[in-house]
Amino acid sequence: MDYSSFYRDNLTMLTDLYQINMAYAHYQTGRMDQEVVFDLFFRKNPSHSGYTVTAGLEQVIEYIQHFSFTDEDIAYLRTVHPYDEGFFSLLRDVRFTGDLWAIPEGTFVFPHEPLLRIRARMIEAQLLETTLLNIINHQSLIATKASRIVSAAGSRPVLEFGLRRAQGADAGLFGARAAYIGGVEATSNVLAGQKFGIPIKGTHAHAYVQSFSNELEAFRSFAAAFPDQCVLLVDTYHTLESGVPHAIQVFREMKEKWGKQFRGYGIRLDSGDLAYLSKEARAMLDEAGFPEASIVASSDLDEKLIQDLLLQGASIDVWGVGTNLITSSDNPALGGVYKLAASMDGQHLVPKIKVSENPSKITNPGVKKVVRFYDQQSLRAKLDMIFLADESIPNSTFVAFDPVHPWKKKTVKNFKAKELLVPIFQQGALVYPSPSLEEMKQHAEKERRSFSPEILRLTNPHEYHVDLSKELWTLKQELVEQAKF
Amino acid sequence: MDYSSFYRDNLTMLTDLYQINMAYAHYQTGRMDQEVVFDLFFRKNPSHSGYTVTAGLEQVIEYIQHFSFTDEDIAYLRTVHPYDEGFFSLLRDVRFTGDLWAIPEGTFVFPHEPLLRIRARMIEAQLLETTLLNIINHQSLIATKASRIVSAAGSRPVLEFGLRRAQGADAGLFGARAAYIGGVEATSNVLAGQKFGIPIKGTHAHAYVQSFSNELEAFRSFAAAFPDQCVLLVDTYHTLESGVPHAIQVFREMKEKWGKQFRGYGIRLDSGDLAYLSKEARAMLDEAGFPEASIVASSDLDEKLIQDLLLQGASIDVWGVGTNLITSSDNPALGGVYKLAASMDGQHLVPKIKVSENPSKITNPGVKKVVRFYDQQSLRAKLDMIFLADESIPNSTFVAFDPVHPWKKKTVKNFKAKELLVPIFQQGALVYPSPSLEEMKQHAEKERRSFSPEILRLTNPHEYHVDLSKELWTLKQELVEQAKF
Repeated sequence: MDYSSFYRDNLTMLTDLYQINMAYAHYQTGRMDQEVVFDLFFRKNPSHSGYTVTAGLEQVIEYIQHFSFTDEDIAYLRTVHPYDEGFFSLLRDVRFTGDLWAIPEGTFVFPHEPLLRIRARMIEAQLLETTLLNIINHQSLIATKASRIVSAAGSRPVLEFGLRRAQGADAGLFGARAAYIGGVEATSNVLAGQKFGIPIKGTHAHAYVQSFSNELEAFRSFAAAFPDQCVLLVDTYHTLESGVPHAIQVFREMKEKWGKQFRGYGIRLDSGDLAYLSKEARAMLDEAGFPEASIVASSDLDEKLIQDLLLQGASIDVWGVGTNLITSSDNPALGGVYKLAASMDGQHLVPKIKVSENPSKITNPGVKKVVRFYDQQSLRAKLDMIFLADESIPNSTFVAFDPVHPWKKKTVKNFKAKELLVPIFQQGALVYPSPSLEEMKQHAEKERRSFSPEILRLTNPHEYHVDLSKELWTLKQELVEQAKF
Repeated sequence: MDYSSFYRDNLTMLTDLYQINMAYAHYQTGRMDQEVVFDLFFRKNPSHSGYTVTAGLEQVIEYIQHFSFTDEDIAYLRTVHPYDEGFFSLLRDVRFTGDLWAIPEGTFVFPHEPLLRIRARMIEAQLLETTLLNIINHQSLIATKASRIVSAAGSRPVLEFGLRRAQGADAGLFGARAAYIGGVEATSNVLAGQKFGIPIKGTHAHAYVQSFSNELEAFRSFAAAFPDQCVLLVDTYHTLESGVPHAIQVFREMKEKWGKQFRGYGIRLDSGDLAYLSKEARAMLDEAGFPEASIVASSDLDEKLIQDLLLQGASIDVWGVGTNLITSSDNPALGGVYKLAASMDGQHLVPKIKVSENPSKITNPGVKKVVRFYDQQSLRAKLDMIFLADESIPNSTFVAFDPVHPWKKKTVKNFKAKELLVPIFQQGALVYPSPSLEEMKQHAEKERRSFSPEILRLTNPHEYHVDLSKELWTLKQELVEQAKF
């Protein structure tokens, strides 16, 4: 029994073997110190979304801060392959000494935009790849799914209830964090509350009701313990014939006893047809004089079902979403990749490209920056453009063009420009004052307001434009032409 | 910045708030010491599979061994709700003192079979629920997906390559573990190798090739570093015009230099049409005198695509499967639940039932055991039956019947019976000698051989029978009839 299998403050070994093997081959050819630039980006928004919400940077920072191989790690690697001693001592000393730029958490981002840009020695950049992808892919995926679900629910709060179906402990913990950035109001996950200060919520389960000889007694005892947040699960036996009437009876008794101190009460529906049941239950609660009793619904919800239930007039005040949120069930992976953009040759960073027969898989070469152009009046985002890092950003009217169909042109005027990538580490030193989780959540909310509803639509959204600067576009065409074997 | 957010040897707080709230309400009514029995089971195999491979028990054992609230945990809970002091001191002292029975990892299991059976004080049983579900749901899901993929690949090895797309660090680590139980031969995940002794494998990435001025130089340097395991990624530029010819050239040079010490070599295809490319590459390699060069394929593979590629004669020796395996992408959650089966009333455990308008959601009441009946000659599994724990298992010919359509009868004879649930903890003490991961994997392989191909079919498999004993079936009917509100 391995006592420590949940113990990890250091994720250095959470990597693919090929990173270590490539590092070794680079070491063998004396190239591990070569400076390189990598971009982390994705090619497709998840869940057919019109946007992605980036998340996970804080964990990336922690990971990089603790990045180092322990003696135990080296001892294990000795058993893997006869790497030479020089390589082991190199690994023992390796730390992150490079630059990292990133787009802050909660920002709405789009395909092909670098979310992270790493400039570092080859060995460092290579060894970081897998964990950076693991963290950013996971949290951005869940933040995006949460954002869509919250969007469907409109002004009604969404609670994250997915821990029991999450893909392991971290998926629950960091999934709750990402969902909070994406807009959920609270989580059921106690550890996420403790670690990250996310508000936590909870009612009770069917087993609680079953453990009593009858439902009424169960409700009474639960209400007595939680007079200030008494949400009763009404579907253990029969929702409308038993659950709701018993809940009403207990609300009456509690009101009599506690008066205004009895508050924050309501019912939870967890099965059956939620549109029908919620409307019936609402009528019964109103009729009984409890219009302030809230109706919480849970049961395989996702953004499409919430939207449909609301269209049918479901009377649901709070949405508890589990499995489909915490796993992003319709699209359980964001396909983020990590690609070489430039490498140092002598004193110069030479742009690098990865060609492919699939044009959308051809990478954007060189060291780049991402600029968002907002309308000066409405402050609404108009388009993003990727520039080479040393280009200056236009300060007056210019013409943007579609990188695939360059004859499609658009005049951009009266704009305010904003660079999205900000410095996180410089020469290995952390230079980024991390915002609080609350600030990230607010940032995501502000981001949502800055995009037009066409981009935010859940189904078949309008495609937001991410163009390339003329200079970058030209460089890319040249390198594609040159790409000989 | 929270240094310790990856630090966890204690998952006690990884729970839903409602578990703590229910525990509090039970405490308030003086019922937290009441003895109860809970079952953990699922209602549907994932991915339309004919079976599920159970996994995660070892992590359940570790979790239970470390189950306890720390002072920091209590301090946090004080901020959540004004629970009373007696409750906090109860939490501070709570440990697992009950009995746990479980079906060992690697066993093929079916809907409605208890994978875990917990008998403990109410407060303990309730507080464990969420984490038990989280662990078993995740690992069983991935073990099942791996088993299906391995099944599709037939005799050809499958490698797990999914870490970068896994839903967080644990999903990668424990997903690799579960995939190994399910039948994969190795993982790319170095931490999984270190923690669990799983064989690890790796080649190189496109970036490695790009970082050189040409592909041939890149291949030469990689081969020089790994003369005993040189698998070259051939699709950075053009697979058949560049990658494969360059690989062949390097194989020739290496053979000349190293002779028989150059071994374990091959190529990896990571894009394009794998059926076409693998057949063309195979012909080129054979023609060049390298019939022993293996062809590894990766690129959005899953069990259906592997099956289809093999049907088309794809010449692929090793399958590297990433995203679709590590997330079980077509069905990213196993819907395991945790239901009250019995509770102590005076000196007797009284069977409990959860009714539902959906008949498949009605639980099986009482303390139960699961028995598998094998044909005495072929040792093939014929059916499973759930009995009440104190029933004796038939030792000669008997008649089983379908629990939903009881007129469907089956005479069971010449059988060998085996109980699936084994004791893990007794009165809080661990009594189970955990098998090694290797033994679990072998057990799963043996399990596969004990089921008929109709059950194992990837698409629309035959439904394996899980019947109820006459006594259990009768008890269930009675309790359903009695279920009044």
